[in-house]
Amino acid sequence: MPKEKKLAIYPGTFDPITNGHLDIIQRAVSLFESVIVAVTTNPSKAPLFTVSERVNMIEEATSKLENVTVENFSGLLMHYAEKRNADVIVRGLRAITDFEYEFQMALVNRKLAGDIVTVFLMPNEKYTYLNSTIVKEVAKFDGDVSSFVPQNVHENLIDRFKNE
Amino acid sequence: MPKEKKLAIYPGTFDPITNGHLDIIQRAVSLFESVIVAVTTNPSKAPLFTVSERVNMIEEATSKLENVTVENFSGLLMHYAEKRNADVIVRGLRAITDFEYEFQMALVNRKLAGDIVTVFLMPNEKYTYLNSTIVKEVAKFDGDVSSFVPQNVHENLIDRFKNE
Amino acid sequence: MPKEKKLAIYPGTFDPITNGHLDIIQRAVSLFESVIVAVTTNPSKAPLFTVSERVNMIEEATSKLENVTVENFSGLLMHYAEKRNADVIVRGLRAITDFEYEFQMALVNRKLAGDIVTVFLMPNEKYTYLNSTIVKEVAKFDGDVSSFVPQNVHENLIDRFKNE
Amino acid sequence: MPKEKKLAIYPGTFDPITNGHLDIIQRAVSLFESVIVAVTTNPSKAPLFTVSERVNMIEEATSKLENVTVENFSGLLMHYAEKRNADVIVRGLRAITDFEYEFQMALVNRKLAGDIVTVFLMPNEKYTYLNSTIVKEVAKFDGDVSSFVPQNVHENLIDRFKNE
Amino acid sequence: MPKEKKLAIYPGTFDPITNGHLDIIQRAVSLFESVIVAVTTNPSKAPLFTVSERVNMIEEATSKLENVTVENFSGLLMHYAEKRNADVIVRGLRAITDFEYEFQMALVNRKLAGDIVTVFLMPNEKYTYLNSTIVKEVAKFDGDVSSFVPQNVHENLIDRFKNE
Amino acid sequence: MPKEKKLAIYPGTFDPITNGHLDIIQRAVSLFESVIVAVTTNPSKAPLFTVSERVNMIEEATSKLENVTVENFSGLLMHYAEKRNADVIVRGLRAITDFEYEFQMALVNRKLAGDIVTVFLMPNEKYTYLNSTIVKEVAKFDGDVSSFVPQNVHENLIDRFKNE
Repeated sequence: MPKEKKLAIYPGTFDPITNGHLDIIQRAVSLFESVIVAVTTNPSKAPLFTVSERVNMIEEATSKLENVTVENFSGLLMHYAEKRNADVIVRGLRAITDFEYEFQMALVNRKLAGDIVTVFLMPNEKYTYLNSTIVKEVAKFDGDVSSFVPQNVHENLIDRFKNE
Repeated sequence: MPKEKKLAIYPGTFDPITNGHLDIIQRAVSLFESVIVAVTTNPSKAPLFTVSERVNMIEEATSKLENVTVENFSGLLMHYAEKRNADVIVRGLRAITDFEYEFQMALVNRKLAGDIVTVFLMPNEKYTYLNSTIVKEVAKFDGDVSSFVPQNVHENLIDRFKNE
Repeated sequence: MPKEKKLAIYPGTFDPITNGHLDIIQRAVSLFESVIVAVTTNPSKAPLFTVSERVNMIEEATSKLENVTVENFSGLLMHYAEKRNADVIVRGLRAITDFEYEFQMALVNRKLAGDIVTVFLMPNEKYTYLNSTIVKEVAKFDGDVSSFVPQNVHENLIDRFKNE
Repeated sequence: MPKEKKLAIYPGTFDPITNGHLDIIQRAVSLFESVIVAVTTNPSKAPLFTVSERVNMIEEATSKLENVTVENFSGLLMHYAEKRNADVIVRGLRAITDFEYEFQMALVNRKLAGDIVTVFLMPNEKYTYLNSTIVKEVAKFDGDVSSFVPQNVHENLIDRFKNE
Repeated sequence: MPKEKKLAIYPGTFDPITNGHLDIIQRAVSLFESVIVAVTTNPSKAPLFTVSERVNMIEEATSKLENVTVENFSGLLMHYAEKRNADVIVRGLRAITDFEYEFQMALVNRKLAGDIVTVFLMPNEKYTYLNSTIVKEVAKFDGDVSSFVPQNVHENLIDRFKNE
Repeated sequence: MPKEKKLAIYPGTFDPITNGHLDIIQRAVSLFESVIVAVTTNPSKAPLFTVSERVNMIEEATSKLENVTVENFSGLLMHYAEKRNADVIVRGLRAITDFEYEFQMALVNRKLAGDIVTVFLMPNEKYTYLNSTIVKEVAKFDGDVSSFVPQNVHENLIDRFKNE
């Protein structure tokens, strides 16, 4: 019999959080009792924002959502998820290229922690082609990204790029 | 705040149910308080099995899973889901071609009933390329499908094709 | 040196025209001097609306656009395009499955009439997963398609399905 | 240790054979000691040409290639392949939509006859988007398909459609 | 009513220009009154050729085409396009992976400058799988790229790699 | 007439070899008289293991397979293949993203050495989403990769990451 209250983890780099991410968080909140937005500290590429900046921006952007907490983690997602006693990993599915990478990660994660289920959610179609990389590219060259990210992130992006 | 107990609907034609479908049902059962496997009666193509045969085969194959019921429905999925007061639509994601059709349906369904969330689950990789059509093709020509479908479905397939 | 005034043909089945098609027509109108929306009469599958019904619905839906005419054609698109002395074939690109079929047709068409250029336009993302088939499926079961098709098409769909 | 002489089967509907199929056959001939082009008699859709017409057209088109024979088969490919003691199934890979179907068939075939290897060959890029269906569509409406099919097939297509 | 004379911009890195790019330029020239090939100076990766080398190679390769000019630009494409008063952005579509990136860019660009239309053109199928990266990889190891790039680019590549 | 004994080359980075690679090697061995696993020394990215470490790990993992040798090569694959007088290039096909890259390389290779045939083999579906990069990511953070790689590679990965 399933546990009464489900804990879901929504992992990512969130450099920075976009309106597409927020859309997924809202859906996850409607499905599960508590949702942890988990910011990875693994140094993949040089991020634009530090881990604590990214955590802060997400906390501000999700402050009105109950049952959402924001954390950071290092190492393997599935080790972190097991330590937190999570039931679900939430992933956004946008486009085909996402799809294959997500499949790969979900299959590996299942090998590593078989009883944690990966659940895919689809954002509103207006966010289908949105990701953090393109937001940074546009913001870097003074393009208007106000419809792509939360207000606080918009300000942080302007601030970050104003002296370039 | 989300409803305490979640009702999920897993819709399909299930002509017949395969081990890939069963795998998705088991994942859904671990996530949500109750799961309805909903067999569509819409006459898309001429099915091999009648709706009641398909319902019976699923009932037998899921008899050991608590909290699973099997029903049939006609008309639009979202109208049926609203009538049942469902919270979630569950869909299996296998391959790319699934992906686009599922996206399309999820976006349309969202327009029709915006507060029901579509959740995608991924079956075990050994079921990635399995579907009912290929099972029927193989069974029709006396191929062995015992590793693709539950035992009771296997027997029904042999029986159905034995006089062809 | 290119001809001064470009004639573009936007071919399709249009059974019925959707808001996604209209979006493509508007983009084509902004690019080329005249646009013919060309409804194929080739009997692929049994259409829901007759050719003249389809032509009429498009004429009503495009009545405010200058330089748009609606015609029907039979036989090969490229023979028709040559007869009309067209410069451009316009096609909408929505999703990956479109993509391969469109590539195939464009390559064949180029073999048949090499100096007519196929141009792909992308509709607004809110129409990415919209097509005539899904509109008919939803309308058939009394789903609300008013955000997917022009008002006159909506009425025709209700009328067509009211006695089913 | 592998068998000295390899027998490869290249199965298909070949309704009719195209230059893309011929390209794959030539590659297979350079790799394996003998190649059987195997025409399926399974009544999928109503074919344009009968099985014996299709076999004859392939025989004419491959008459200059040594070590190629043409046969027809019914039932499951893998049962036929085992009866012929084949080592290899050859499949052409053109585009993404092929890809998923081929994967599916290859995985099912492996379950049915594990020691027969499926080998994928890629035709010349000029045949990437060519298939029998599009050839028939173009020929039906008097389009020129002489660059898509062997000369004898071209004549047969003209003959078949001349009274439509 | 649309502007009489259309200005199209064909943006890219062109490091270096290939025969596939040239093919797209020729199609664009046949459609629009003037075409600017716009070389980005944004330092994505370390390019093999400087911006002025890339501009020069394109100028030589397009010297016989009327109405083509070559420029470089920095910053956001849409800001540059607005400054130039362009009507159209031209993009080549080759394969699926292109497709998703192009969709993403076109949707973002539409948000940034809604009245500039992105138009996708398809090169000849023999250039389907050609890009600048693979040309450089082959040339670097003394492979023959003479069928992939214009003659002047071929010479520049040999020259560039001769001392490696 | 084809050469009696076929020599196949299976090229790659193999940083490190996985069970998916081994699966492909076993299929290639059953098809061709001799198979060279060819480790590229081209410095793409900084590899985790040196060329000689990678060669050694493959030699150990394939020591029970007759007719397999392991070599390294630099420069263009097709130049190396011609020098070795190879008949076949073997490539594994897993997912869609592979597919386009492989198509591209096969088409270029055909231009460079037209009589060497590229053959695609499909690994067991349990390796569909496995590659060296994901193995290294998991191993780096102490995840268990024992089901993804041969035993000797597993030990080498533990050893390599133990002091990080």
